[in-house]
Amino acid sequence: MQLLLPILVLLAFSGITLSRVKEVHNVLELTGQRASRLRFSTDVAKGKYTPPEEMDPQFWYNIADEEIAKRLQLPQLSTKKAKNVIMFLGDGMPISSVTAARILKGQRQNKTGEESLLSFESFPYSGLSRTYCSNAQVPDSACTATAYLCGVKTNIINLGVSAAVNFNNCTASQDPANRLTSIAEWSQNAGKSTGIVTTTTLTHASPSGAYAKSANRMWECDTDVTSYGVDASTCIDMATQLVTQTPGKNFEVMFGGGMGKFLPKTIKDSHGKAGERSDGVNLLSRWQGLHDKGVMVTNRKQLLNLDVSSASSIIGVFQSGLMDLHMDADATYQPTLSELTEVAIKKLSQNDNGYFVFIEGGLIDIANHYTQAGYALDELLEFEKAIQLARDITDIEDTLIVVTADHGHAVSIAGYPGRGTPILGVNHHDADINGVKYSVLNYAAGPNQYLDESGQRIPLEDILGPDNAITPSYIPTEIGVHSGEDVGIWASGPQSHLFTGVMQQHTIPHLMAYASCVGSGKKVCGN
Amino acid sequence: MQLLLPILVLLAFSGITLSRVKEVHNVLELTGQRASRLRFSTDVAKGKYTPPEEMDPQFWYNIADEEIAKRLQLPQLSTKKAKNVIMFLGDGMPISSVTAARILKGQRQNKTGEESLLSFESFPYSGLSRTYCSNAQVPDSACTATAYLCGVKTNIINLGVSAAVNFNNCTASQDPANRLTSIAEWSQNAGKSTGIVTTTTLTHASPSGAYAKSANRMWECDTDVTSYGVDASTCIDMATQLVTQTPGKNFEVMFGGGMGKFLPKTIKDSHGKAGERSDGVNLLSRWQGLHDKGVMVTNRKQLLNLDVSSASSIIGVFQSGLMDLHMDADATYQPTLSELTEVAIKKLSQNDNGYFVFIEGGLIDIANHYTQAGYALDELLEFEKAIQLARDITDIEDTLIVVTADHGHAVSIAGYPGRGTPILGVNHHDADINGVKYSVLNYAAGPNQYLDESGQRIPLEDILGPDNAITPSYIPTEIGVHSGEDVGIWASGPQSHLFTGVMQQHTIPHLMAYASCVGSGKKVCGN
Repeated sequence: MQLLLPILVLLAFSGITLSRVKEVHNVLELTGQRASRLRFSTDVAKGKYTPPEEMDPQFWYNIADEEIAKRLQLPQLSTKKAKNVIMFLGDGMPISSVTAARILKGQRQNKTGEESLLSFESFPYSGLSRTYCSNAQVPDSACTATAYLCGVKTNIINLGVSAAVNFNNCTASQDPANRLTSIAEWSQNAGKSTGIVTTTTLTHASPSGAYAKSANRMWECDTDVTSYGVDASTCIDMATQLVTQTPGKNFEVMFGGGMGKFLPKTIKDSHGKAGERSDGVNLLSRWQGLHDKGVMVTNRKQLLNLDVSSASSIIGVFQSGLMDLHMDADATYQPTLSELTEVAIKKLSQNDNGYFVFIEGGLIDIANHYTQAGYALDELLEFEKAIQLARDITDIEDTLIVVTADHGHAVSIAGYPGRGTPILGVNHHDADINGVKYSVLNYAAGPNQYLDESGQRIPLEDILGPDNAITPSYIPTEIGVHSGEDVGIWASGPQSHLFTGVMQQHTIPHLMAYASCVGSGKKVCGN
Repeated sequence: MQLLLPILVLLAFSGITLSRVKEVHNVLELTGQRASRLRFSTDVAKGKYTPPEEMDPQFWYNIADEEIAKRLQLPQLSTKKAKNVIMFLGDGMPISSVTAARILKGQRQNKTGEESLLSFESFPYSGLSRTYCSNAQVPDSACTATAYLCGVKTNIINLGVSAAVNFNNCTASQDPANRLTSIAEWSQNAGKSTGIVTTTTLTHASPSGAYAKSANRMWECDTDVTSYGVDASTCIDMATQLVTQTPGKNFEVMFGGGMGKFLPKTIKDSHGKAGERSDGVNLLSRWQGLHDKGVMVTNRKQLLNLDVSSASSIIGVFQSGLMDLHMDADATYQPTLSELTEVAIKKLSQNDNGYFVFIEGGLIDIANHYTQAGYALDELLEFEKAIQLARDITDIEDTLIVVTADHGHAVSIAGYPGRGTPILGVNHHDADINGVKYSVLNYAAGPNQYLDESGQRIPLEDILGPDNAITPSYIPTEIGVHSGEDVGIWASGPQSHLFTGVMQQHTIPHLMAYASCVGSGKKVCGN
């Protein structure tokens, strides 16, 4: 090691002739044959970060053998019907967040992290989902929910109506030609039980894709409809749709937040806040009136004490608005996504015809919007735990589990951090041109640039570290933004082999319908 | 539409209680119930960006029917052996670049772009590849080449040697226990023909993974070895390894740049530049001496006039260093990747036992390092053309094609650009907190921040647009950086069904070996 330390390894851009580069760039100087440097520290060069067992090639050959064996020993489920379908949706969950969450999972177990694996990453099949919407290169959670639940791409902000409907256009959304049906409705028509579970509100964009028809995702209650200048008696708010219209009124499980959307302003909800409705309607009483044996729960204790066999339907509204982020939540009061998942599956499993349930890790997106990677990854780990539980308590021979995201977020794992670098921390193995270190995770846009008054970046050591830190972002926006690259699909169970290749997002419900023999399209049952 | 224009749609963060957010953020103010806004322009709200045909749900149902039919009508290749294996490697090609290239492809055809499809995206199977290396959370192209060609993860900068070898450690790299073999060698041992094709140099990290054993990817010629303080007579440079050692010396096709690495400083190469070797050896003469019927070509005309049936082997060195970026290249002088691919396959197809060939789109990475998305996507489109050609001129019944990347780059498609927004342009549908618009594509780190002297971002309209523009980046580094999220795998042909799920990158060559019945592991042929 006769080299300068830290070692600067010149990357092999030998002889590069990027003539046009020279015309436009304003920082980089291409001098001579080598234009780039990959910095890595002395420690890395000395192998400090290399786990000893990985130095033996046999370690890797064994893993490869297992990977091959796993693929050869797949259960033969390609001709079986999926009695049950569980769709898990990680809202705003790009591939980069999935990789980062895997690393965090391992690091929480005091490992280097990269070698870890999320529950759904062991599923035998994976695919890629194309997320754009009819009028948007980068979508929102409404048009994507319409795609992955109703099987049709539409305009941004729309739910359950086609792209013939423009934003907030009540009249167009009432035209039967423009109104769509979801796989929840198809499943009900086939005699199956149905449900929705979310960590957001029951009327949030993602779960609403299962039951709502709306020209504006913001029409969660009548007050919201009116606030957009629309007649709430013509364009029914989504909370009312959920309780009174098909397919929502037939859901046997509805778990989430958003209690305020169901109650009048004159009533305090179970969580101590006033309702949001202006029409005076108590939709929860109305729901109870429609469901003799329906049970409402509003906290963890009630949920876990439920006798699912005696309840015809269950509505659980665990917060006034969004549910609390898992790291901040009162664990004795608010159930986890795993607990919600377990009760939902137990209830829905009572139907011999099977069920369709939509389960959302909705706060991954919220935390990514706030560019708080620690929260986002924690929510993602809660999501993967719920998936593990769902796979454990269902039969792989009759239950298809499909995991996917609606869209990405513009977050990346950047630079050349050494093995085992804390995923929420500083990248100690690279620095900017001023010698300032940057974080491992970075958002393209968001509310925190960590710049001093002169616009220079400030060191991160004192800022990063706590799980609740705001991860740096660079384009100064009020909030982080979605991204437009493809997201992942992971599948297990009957017909899971169909969920591979690159597909349009709206294909997903049609494949689930094929597998479970619902809907009007092709079915594995040959109907 | 009685709303303010441009319309500000409040995203449904109603009731959010991110208490800890308030403690740390310094820009965002969470006041009241709604904290975020998704901006979109009046034009988008009016449906201006919605293609009319997409307004009909049937449009989407038809696509879904086709997607299902495609999956049901897959040729039954799961029991067949892959006589031939073609591995296509997009260097530094994240999922985000693949999505962006797809959009650019469509936009070059005067479509909105998002609905387009790259050749390999129509392959029936896709998977995800985990790219970390033994000592690096985010890898380089050397340790990854060792993974996807030798089937073992190793340390960053290493090629063809295990993680027991540290950077630049000549002695450790000579220990037989630490030296690996590649699928190229396994294929030769099974009587198959082999070759490498790249747009970088023949001695660059990616293709070198097929033949080299080196503790430093920079040891391309003897001068390079010496420059790192290592004895070039002990640790043989990679150009010499390619010409004189197994498996390189048996390659029947070697196409790329880097002629200078094979020639002494005293000799001018075919491209008018002096060689780089200090040892006085003319490796190209030596290669000719070892291959009576070997043919060397150095430009497009020679390549296209080649009689592949009379040449025992072909070495093509088309530039002194890296090949020129496709957009900048003299098209009459430098062959395209498709032309290289066609000749390579024609030559290798002469062997009745089949072949293994590695074909790299290597400049995708280079352009991403320079944060020039226009070049990167153009190189990616050249790459996808070559894959289309390869699929067209080979038999899907006997030729497995595997497409993947070694690692990502920290580039994202950010914000909410409307449908059809030029992928290399400005996002006209969002702006930062100062009202400054940002670009659709953004790199986390790189050489251009487009900041004025006071550190404020400057408008992009006058900067973006030309295909050769430098895309904005935000952490000021000399050059863009790799990213650590999983990359895609796309496969077609015999045993392609194995290339799905989430896998360690080093599994890929073992799966290819299984499919083509080479190497010492499990084989579909049952050997």
